[in-house]
Amino acid sequence: MPKVSVKGQQMPESPIRKLVPYAEIAKKKGHKVYHLNIGQPDIKTPDVALQAVKNADISVLEYSHSAGFESYRTKLSQYYKNHGLPIDTQDIIITTGGSEALLFAMGSTMDAGDEIIIPEPFYANYNGFSTASGVNVVPVISGIETGFALPPIEAFEKLITSKTKAILICNPGNPTGYLYSQEEILKLAEIVKKHDLFLIADEVYREFIYDGDEHFSVMNVPGLEEHAIMIDSVSKRYSMCGARIGCIVSKNAAVMATAMKFAQARLSPPTYAQIASEAALETPQSYFDDVISEYKDRRDTLITELNKIDGVKVATPKGAFYCIAKLPIDNADKFAQWLLESYDLNGETVMVAPAAGFYSTPNVGLDEVRIAYVLKKEDLIKSVQILKEAIAVYNNKK
Amino acid sequence: MPKVSVKGQQMPESPIRKLVPYAEIAKKKGHKVYHLNIGQPDIKTPDVALQAVKNADISVLEYSHSAGFESYRTKLSQYYKNHGLPIDTQDIIITTGGSEALLFAMGSTMDAGDEIIIPEPFYANYNGFSTASGVNVVPVISGIETGFALPPIEAFEKLITSKTKAILICNPGNPTGYLYSQEEILKLAEIVKKHDLFLIADEVYREFIYDGDEHFSVMNVPGLEEHAIMIDSVSKRYSMCGARIGCIVSKNAAVMATAMKFAQARLSPPTYAQIASEAALETPQSYFDDVISEYKDRRDTLITELNKIDGVKVATPKGAFYCIAKLPIDNADKFAQWLLESYDLNGETVMVAPAAGFYSTPNVGLDEVRIAYVLKKEDLIKSVQILKEAIAVYNNKK
Ligand SMILES: Cc1ncc(COP(=O)(O)O)c(C=O)c1O
Ligand SMILES: Cc1ncc(COP(=O)(O)O)c(C=O)c1O
Repeated sequence: MPKVSVKGQQMPESPIRKLVPYAEIAKKKGHKVYHLNIGQPDIKTPDVALQAVKNADISVLEYSHSAGFESYRTKLSQYYKNHGLPIDTQDIIITTGGSEALLFAMGSTMDAGDEIIIPEPFYANYNGFSTASGVNVVPVISGIETGFALPPIEAFEKLITSKTKAILICNPGNPTGYLYSQEEILKLAEIVKKHDLFLIADEVYREFIYDGDEHFSVMNVPGLEEHAIMIDSVSKRYSMCGARIGCIVSKNAAVMATAMKFAQARLSPPTYAQIASEAALETPQSYFDDVISEYKDRRDTLITELNKIDGVKVATPKGAFYCIAKLPIDNADKFAQWLLESYDLNGETVMVAPAAGFYSTPNVGLDEVRIAYVLKKEDLIKSVQILKEAIAVYNNKK
Repeated sequence: MPKVSVKGQQMPESPIRKLVPYAEIAKKKGHKVYHLNIGQPDIKTPDVALQAVKNADISVLEYSHSAGFESYRTKLSQYYKNHGLPIDTQDIIITTGGSEALLFAMGSTMDAGDEIIIPEPFYANYNGFSTASGVNVVPVISGIETGFALPPIEAFEKLITSKTKAILICNPGNPTGYLYSQEEILKLAEIVKKHDLFLIADEVYREFIYDGDEHFSVMNVPGLEEHAIMIDSVSKRYSMCGARIGCIVSKNAAVMATAMKFAQARLSPPTYAQIASEAALETPQSYFDDVISEYKDRRDTLITELNKIDGVKVATPKGAFYCIAKLPIDNADKFAQWLLESYDLNGETVMVAPAAGFYSTPNVGLDEVRIAYVLKKEDLIKSVQILKEAIAVYNNKK
C-alpha cells in the first residue's frame, strides 16, 4: 500500500481541530457553546457586494485573467492609494484568499530547506503553508510579558543563517492583536536590507485598529521596494471570508513575475468572488465606522471582563479581533477539552483555542488561549462569566 | 536585492503565454483572431447554476467547511453513484478547481525530489504543479503515430525508480483527446500495484466522450482502492470554469486525511461557486446531450477539414475537446507567432498552441500544435481554411 508523503505527515492540523469531537459531545448534551475559538466574524457583508453578485449578468462563467480582473486590480490600486499606500495595478495579483497569496509568496521566494523567521505566537496556518512549501519556520519569541512587542534586533540576527530568505510578520497580529509601531517596522526594514531578505507582511487586518493608532505598512517604507511583499484579503475587511479573495502585492518585479507563474498554473481566482470584491470597494465609510466601533466595544468588554478573573493575564489588543489570555490553569489543551466534554453553567459552555498551536517552539503558551471577539457584547460577557466559573471548578476538582 | 526562489525560476510559463504579445499585435492591426488555443468553452453555463447564485440568500458570506459543503459532497457522491462510480461522501474533498485538487494530490503523496511518471504530451500545468511541489516529472512518450495510445508496460517499468511515487494520467486527455480503454487502465493498475505507486487520474473531461465509447474510471478498478486518486472539476462539465470548483477523490483514508490538512490550511473553497456547483447537479440530461452532440459535430468538422490539408496528420480525438495536429511546417512556435504577427487572410487569422509545451522531453512535437474545438462550426471551418492558406504562404516565403 503506497504511503502518503513525509511532508503530508508533517502538515500540522489546525489547533482547534482536535477539539471538534468534544464540541460535538457538548452539542449532543444539548449545551449551548459560545465559540470564542474562530475568526469567522458575525458582521454582515456589505450589501453592495452581495447585490453585485445577484445582479451579475453571466451567460458563460469564464476563467478570468490569472492575475484577476483588470478592472478590479485598477480599482484596488486606487483604494490603496486613497489609504496612503503607493500601490500600482501591476503590483497586484488577485489570489484565492490571503491563503493563496501566502503560498505564492513562499513559493516565489523560498526553496525546500530554506528558512523563514516568524515572531511567535503566529497564525497557525503559517506552519501549514511552510510545510507545504518545504520551508522551515524559525520562530522568534514575542511573549505576553512584553505585550507581544517586536523582539530586539539581536534576537533576529542570532537566527539568521545562509538559509534564511524572509521574515514574516502579521500586522496587526492574529492571534495577539499586536500592532507594530512605525519604529518596529523600520527596524525590521533595516534587518532585511542588511541581510538581503524579504519582509513578508500579512496585513489582512489592516483596517481593524482601535484607539486612534495608525497602521504602518511595509509598502510605506522608502527603499524597501525590492524587499517588501504584502499579503491582503477581503475576508475580514468586508466580512466575506467565503468569497476567497486576497492578493499578493510587491514592487519587486521579479517576485511578481514569479508569483504570476504560480497564478497561471492554477488558471484564475474565482469569478463570482471577484465580482463581489470589486463591488465591495464601493462600501460606504459608515460601514467601517460602525464595524470598528462595534469591535472596539467588544474588545473593551472582553478585556474588562477577563481582567475581573483572578490570575488572568491579557495584553490589550490594538488591532484585529483576537487576544491571547494567560489563564490560571495547568494546561489549556486539557482545560479546553474539559470545557466542552464535562462542564456547563446552566447548560452553556465556551470553546477556546489553546494557544500552544500558535507557537512553533514546543511547550510554550501551554496555559494560554486565543479568544476571538467576533461575538455580540452580551455573548462575550456571558462567555467570560462561564470561563470564570469554569476555572474555579476546574482548579477545585483536582 | 533578495532573489526569487530556484523553484520559482523553474516554474514553466504557459505554452501560449509568449504568444500573447503577438496576439496583441494582430488585434492592433484590426485583425480578427480565431482562438483555437484555449480550453475556455463558449457553451452556456446551465441556468440552474446561475439562478442558484442569484437566489442565494446570504447575509454573512462565511467560510464553508474545509472539505466543502456537506450537502454538496453528499449530492456529488450520489451523482457519481448514478454514473456507476462507487464514491462515498467521505471520499470527496471539494477544491478550488481541479487545479487545487492536483496540488493536494501531489502534496499528499510526494516529497521534494520524488518522481511522477506522466505519459506525454500532457496538460502543461502538470509541469507547474510538479515544480511547485518540488516533484520531478518523468515523461513516457505516447506519440501521434500510435494515436497517443498507452505506451507498453515495459516503457513504464524502465522508468520506475525508488523515487517514483505515482503515475498521472489524463483521461480523456488534454491535449490529445485520447480515451484510455478499460484494458489500458487495468494495465496501469497492475503496474501501480506491483510497484506500490499511486495512480492519479485527471478525469475532468469524463463526460466528453464521443462515438458511443465508454469512459472507464480508476475508481472502477476493484482492488485499486488504496492506489487510485481521481481529480475532477465542474469547469468543463458545466462550462463554469470561472467557478473554480473541483474535487480530489480517493478511497485511501490516509491520503484523504492528508489532503484534508492541506485543505484546512487554506480554510475553504469559494462559497458562491459551491452554491453554483451544487445546483448544477440538477442540470437536465438534455443539456449534456446537446453539448456532447455540439462538440461531436465540431470535432467531426475540425478533423474533416484538417485532413483536407496536404501533409497534416491528426489523430481523431475520442474525448475532451482538443486534438494534436502535426503540420507540414518547420517549427510550430515560429509558425504560431508568424500567424499572429505577419499573416492574415482577409483581415482574419488564427491562434494555435504550439505543442512542444505539452511535452516534457525537449525537442519533441516541434511541428505539432494543439487545437481546441471550443468554437462554433462555421468558425472552425473558417479557421482551418485560414490555416491551410497560411501554411502554403509560410512555406513559400522561405
Ligand atoms: C493572519 C491571517 N492571515 C491570513 C488569513 C487567511 O485568510 P483568507 O485566506 O480568508 O484571506 C487569516 C484568516 O484567518 C489570518 O488570520
Ligand atoms: C486536463 C486538465 N486538468 C485540470 C484542469 C484544471 O481545471 P480547473 O482548475 O478549472 O478545474 C484543466 C483545465 O483546463 C485541464 O485541461
